[in-house]
Amino acid sequence: MKIKVIMPIVSDIFNEEIKEEVKYYASENTEVAVCNLDYGPASIESEYDEALSIPDFLEKAKEAEEAGYQGVISDCLADPGVKAAREILDIPVVGPGETAMYYACSLGSSFSIVTVLPNVISMLENLSKTAGVDGKLASIRSVNIPVLEVHDKVRLKKALYDEMIKAIEQDHAHTIVLGCTGFMGVAFELQERLKENGYDVPVIDPMFAATKMLESLITMKVKQSRLTYMTPPSKQRVKSRD
Amino acid sequence: MKIKVIMPIVSDIFNEEIKEEVKYYASENTEVAVCNLDYGPASIESEYDEALSIPDFLEKAKEAEEAGYQGVISDCLADPGVKAAREILDIPVVGPGETAMYYACSLGSSFSIVTVLPNVISMLENLSKTAGVDGKLASIRSVNIPVLEVHDKVRLKKALYDEMIKAIEQDHAHTIVLGCTGFMGVAFELQERLKENGYDVPVIDPMFAATKMLESLITMKVKQSRLTYMTPPSKQRVKSRD
Amino acid sequence: MKIKVIMPIVSDIFNEEIKEEVKYYASENTEVAVCNLDYGPASIESEYDEALSIPDFLEKAKEAEEAGYQGVISDCLADPGVKAAREILDIPVVGPGETAMYYACSLGSSFSIVTVLPNVISMLENLSKTAGVDGKLASIRSVNIPVLEVHDKVRLKKALYDEMIKAIEQDHAHTIVLGCTGFMGVAFELQERLKENGYDVPVIDPMFAATKMLESLITMKVKQSRLTYMTPPSKQRVKSRD
Amino acid sequence: MKIKVIMPIVSDIFNEEIKEEVKYYASENTEVAVCNLDYGPASIESEYDEALSIPDFLEKAKEAEEAGYQGVISDCLADPGVKAAREILDIPVVGPGETAMYYACSLGSSFSIVTVLPNVISMLENLSKTAGVDGKLASIRSVNIPVLEVHDKVRLKKALYDEMIKAIEQDHAHTIVLGCTGFMGVAFELQERLKENGYDVPVIDPMFAATKMLESLITMKVKQSRLTYMTPPSKQRVKSRD
Amino acid sequence: MKIKVIMPIVSDIFNEEIKEEVKYYASENTEVAVCNLDYGPASIESEYDEALSIPDFLEKAKEAEEAGYQGVISDCLADPGVKAAREILDIPVVGPGETAMYYACSLGSSFSIVTVLPNVISMLENLSKTAGVDGKLASIRSVNIPVLEVHDKVRLKKALYDEMIKAIEQDHAHTIVLGCTGFMGVAFELQERLKENGYDVPVIDPMFAATKMLESLITMKVKQSRLTYMTPPSKQRVKSRD
Amino acid sequence: MKIKVIMPIVSDIFNEEIKEEVKYYASENTEVAVCNLDYGPASIESEYDEALSIPDFLEKAKEAEEAGYQGVISDCLADPGVKAAREILDIPVVGPGETAMYYACSLGSSFSIVTVLPNVISMLENLSKTAGVDGKLASIRSVNIPVLEVHDKVRLKKALYDEMIKAIEQDHAHTIVLGCTGFMGVAFELQERLKENGYDVPVIDPMFAATKMLESLITMKVKQSRLTYMTPPSKQRVKSRD
Repeated sequence: MKIKVIMPIVSDIFNEEIKEEVKYYASENTEVAVCNLDYGPASIESEYDEALSIPDFLEKAKEAEEAGYQGVISDCLADPGVKAAREILDIPVVGPGETAMYYACSLGSSFSIVTVLPNVISMLENLSKTAGVDGKLASIRSVNIPVLEVHDKVRLKKALYDEMIKAIEQDHAHTIVLGCTGFMGVAFELQERLKENGYDVPVIDPMFAATKMLESLITMKVKQSRLTYMTPPSKQRVKSRD
Repeated sequence: MKIKVIMPIVSDIFNEEIKEEVKYYASENTEVAVCNLDYGPASIESEYDEALSIPDFLEKAKEAEEAGYQGVISDCLADPGVKAAREILDIPVVGPGETAMYYACSLGSSFSIVTVLPNVISMLENLSKTAGVDGKLASIRSVNIPVLEVHDKVRLKKALYDEMIKAIEQDHAHTIVLGCTGFMGVAFELQERLKENGYDVPVIDPMFAATKMLESLITMKVKQSRLTYMTPPSKQRVKSRD
Repeated sequence: MKIKVIMPIVSDIFNEEIKEEVKYYASENTEVAVCNLDYGPASIESEYDEALSIPDFLEKAKEAEEAGYQGVISDCLADPGVKAAREILDIPVVGPGETAMYYACSLGSSFSIVTVLPNVISMLENLSKTAGVDGKLASIRSVNIPVLEVHDKVRLKKALYDEMIKAIEQDHAHTIVLGCTGFMGVAFELQERLKENGYDVPVIDPMFAATKMLESLITMKVKQSRLTYMTPPSKQRVKSRD
Repeated sequence: MKIKVIMPIVSDIFNEEIKEEVKYYASENTEVAVCNLDYGPASIESEYDEALSIPDFLEKAKEAEEAGYQGVISDCLADPGVKAAREILDIPVVGPGETAMYYACSLGSSFSIVTVLPNVISMLENLSKTAGVDGKLASIRSVNIPVLEVHDKVRLKKALYDEMIKAIEQDHAHTIVLGCTGFMGVAFELQERLKENGYDVPVIDPMFAATKMLESLITMKVKQSRLTYMTPPSKQRVKSRD
Repeated sequence: MKIKVIMPIVSDIFNEEIKEEVKYYASENTEVAVCNLDYGPASIESEYDEALSIPDFLEKAKEAEEAGYQGVISDCLADPGVKAAREILDIPVVGPGETAMYYACSLGSSFSIVTVLPNVISMLENLSKTAGVDGKLASIRSVNIPVLEVHDKVRLKKALYDEMIKAIEQDHAHTIVLGCTGFMGVAFELQERLKENGYDVPVIDPMFAATKMLESLITMKVKQSRLTYMTPPSKQRVKSRD
Repeated sequence: MKIKVIMPIVSDIFNEEIKEEVKYYASENTEVAVCNLDYGPASIESEYDEALSIPDFLEKAKEAEEAGYQGVISDCLADPGVKAAREILDIPVVGPGETAMYYACSLGSSFSIVTVLPNVISMLENLSKTAGVDGKLASIRSVNIPVLEVHDKVRLKKALYDEMIKAIEQDHAHTIVLGCTGFMGVAFELQERLKENGYDVPVIDPMFAATKMLESLITMKVKQSRLTYMTPPSKQRVKSRD
């Protein structure tokens, strides 16, 4: 099985770490490729960033399908470009945000998301509404750390843990979703730490969930419904200013 | 008052008609300007088209603010780019889709949208969910006429009328929203025709509603909340391939 | 354009201030008339008051239509008599409560109402449910000042500001609706003060919103749907004891 | 136990039948009194009628409490005056509409209401929303017979049966609520007839349900919450023109 | 009228108290019988306990119908076995949990449940969802006292009162449901104590509500809908290991 | 990885087919064991059957954990015993009903379930409510074939196809869930046949989805939240009559 992870940002500095991470999540036989964008934002922390990331994400997604990949993941919790890519591809397209929410719902009666900045809260809240699981959303909290600073794992884990505790104690969250796909390699440790402190709750790593979901869909030979995601009609589409 | 209507498509053939139309809707003192995109799709009939339209829409919206316009309308029922533009502008940004839904809700206990193609139904349904009025949405129906063929007004009005009757009789709609901003100059005639046939229901022209809403917001000196639409952090954003 | 504002209370002491206020909100060409009731309560602070206000409100609304007014506003946030008046009139009838909620929804992902007394909270909550926007209602708070004491603007603004801050910080409101139409002439100042303190959120003056909405409806030539608000059948109706 | 049934209409022609009916529903020891209004509508078939009925209903309700009655029922499916009366009385006030909906919910996964005229459908739909059970409402249908013609029981039962069958077969109703308190003495017969035709579903007589609910509340020594229905503040209230 | 209360637990120590209590709730002519299980849990404090209680509850319910009882109550707030018993019996089956929630909804705009242990919160929350009234559920709180220790009424009442105050002040509950049918004989006293302290809110005793509801249903000659609770098809059912 | 599939029925005739099927779904390294119950129903087609199946299912689930299995599936679309087993086990427990619904939601904007008999419709509807995805449930349809007759695959596939077409055309389903885990080996063929007839929609095989979900959870080292599914307190539990 060949899957493509598209980083919807212009930087390539995360590519290697992501590739290692997703290969670790994936089944032995799954071939994982990672790419980033040629144009778009350096990170996604707003509707604005998301909008700028989608056109080239769609190019990259189309190229992945043409190159024989069997599924695509958009590597950002806001699921940028997922809906549009589902229209133009005939292979499954998976978003880590929506997927992590479904995993969280299946494991407890409510969930909270702990994300990077307050800027993305409304965007993620809307995602929970179109995914249809806003009734189980306890809260969305942020650690107030920009995407490009999440590599400081000590600071990150401290901040995530503190917000998770608040999500559990104040917002009645029973399950936690990591709210940025850049929060790599911390889910299990945080889950263990919560457990040691009396809260035996699952912490969902969204890229882990997305990888397993995509593998499942490919194995099950299912993809997005063409009644929801119809093939766009042919027409003129000018893709850049020049 | 100076307002800017941005057609989120590359063609300029509608600009004059739109300008006349919006000037007719607007107050006497309102100055209306219309522009189209340099790059993007020829029309919006999918999530894919919407995604391609947003980057240049955002440029045009920013330019409008810098040129002293006091408010912006995205001229498409899917409200492309409205959320992102609200983040980067300090003047009100209005989408005709969301606005028409609120007008419809205020006039009856349920509403239906009659749009161009089945392709956009899920997109508009999601818009009703993020607008928070999906509980009043009776149905979304389509006339199966592409955007670029809506100029045949005789065919269009016949098809719209037929679907409106079905929306009322089968789906229990009490109010009708025209589901494409290209359906210009037909709302009142269709409303009259429905009334003659026993259905005294409002037919909302979405650009009429958006124009009045934008004028209201400017007069009231209010705009989108910065708690929902935070200013995006500064960062590198590569805006085209070249 | 001629519009009629009906104060659903027996006192006439507010009439002049309201008239000045609404004329300021309205377009230059809009002719504004204000009247109060002959019988009913001195103010509306309960379901009981609302019930007592409606019969004469309906008389006044009918007289307004007969006198050639093109639209009517019920000047109270609980929208007393709006639904019944919509049945018996053929001109648009607008309630400031419902209208302000739709304006608030269009500007942010959640809203709070700050009203006079706790007595009206359930009534306004029910209004949000029949308007279909309860999913976006963050909270309803009160300043604990009776309607007939809101003229002390210094005390009022202090109390409103304090509750708005709580609505934003504790209840996650992104938009504020002034919860009494007697809170005249304070919206903009409070909005500015919130902004200076870091919360750039819109504060909706409900009579301002209602005035603009009514003007819009008249201009758009739409009114309430007759499928929701059917004309009442003819029958004996004894209108007073004597 | 002494309970008072208030007919929120000016005619007294139903009083005797209602009294017999409610005495049949009530426990042996319950003393039942029935009265009608001095002013108000001849029947309730619109928001307009409801509004006109409430002021004198509230007088009658207050008199009932003062005369030592222990509970009050507003005898109309729209529950006219129930919310306001709950504020001004210290004894339980019950509406047959809301009560019948709760009984219906407790007996099946969905319910339909079959009422008199299409005019009251939106009013009843709103009642289901404020009662919080709109999620279980399958449909509201009407027999198109005015209240003052429901005495023709043969025609009525035929029409009710036909709409009940449609509610079950087309709208997936599992429980039926009779949608007018004037539909007296027909629930059980219709329930039997549905059963003979393969649909063993409960048919709720709303006044029967309201009577039993009121007796329960009095026995349980509970009444409406003062946090929802606060005592109205003292003030001038002019109760009639003269 | 003959009704059967089934304690879904193996102990018989509560039988006498329950019988006295229910006879006190019931009408004079109602004959009340109480029985417990032969196998099952000692108390119900988890989904696990509930599952173990249902098979013998269903035996006892069937026996009650065969012995001529006209209705059955499952004496536990989680309503164990109610749905299954409704399928196999032709007499009404009532659960105190669901019934108490409907009573609470009818008396105020929101309700909280105060129960024994945090273990049952999700179970009761799910019950509110299938009952369709989760929109009015303010919170579920627990006193952290196991079922088998609720006989210490002094400790119990102190703990219940404290949580009720929190439900009212922090969670905005307007009505209180006692969250365990073992909380016998305390509802009225707690209601009085809340009233003395400024909160005139109803406290619903769930077995009182269930008893009155069952009597109502029997009197009204209605029972659960066979469209929701269909008769199970015949088949092999092995009821115990041996 | 070792997973245990528990058939919550007394017959062992399906065990071999299920084992082959699940091994086909599972990853190469996954060891699959299947067992049936010693006591319980022959099939699950009612709440009654479900209740009878759970006690021995829980025994078998506990034994599986003690025997070193890393996860358990309850092989029935009603997810019998899943919630209770999640309380008493420390390994993930997965239900095919809930899981298939989440998969369906992730692939389209609405889904329908096509099941065996009308008897189970309310039970599955309730499952969608506790899973939190009832907002996306278009309909539940049945083929009217008992579980023990689903082996006639020709008849089954014809009936399923016909109901799927109705779900799509009449109920607006965009995704289909097979509504019985006994519908083995037909999903892909039906999906292909729908596609040939113009409906390119995913058909979810619930045991396929449950198997992949369970493998994912084990790989991700997450399980059900202990805040939703608390460990039951110790107490006497009499597990059979003798």
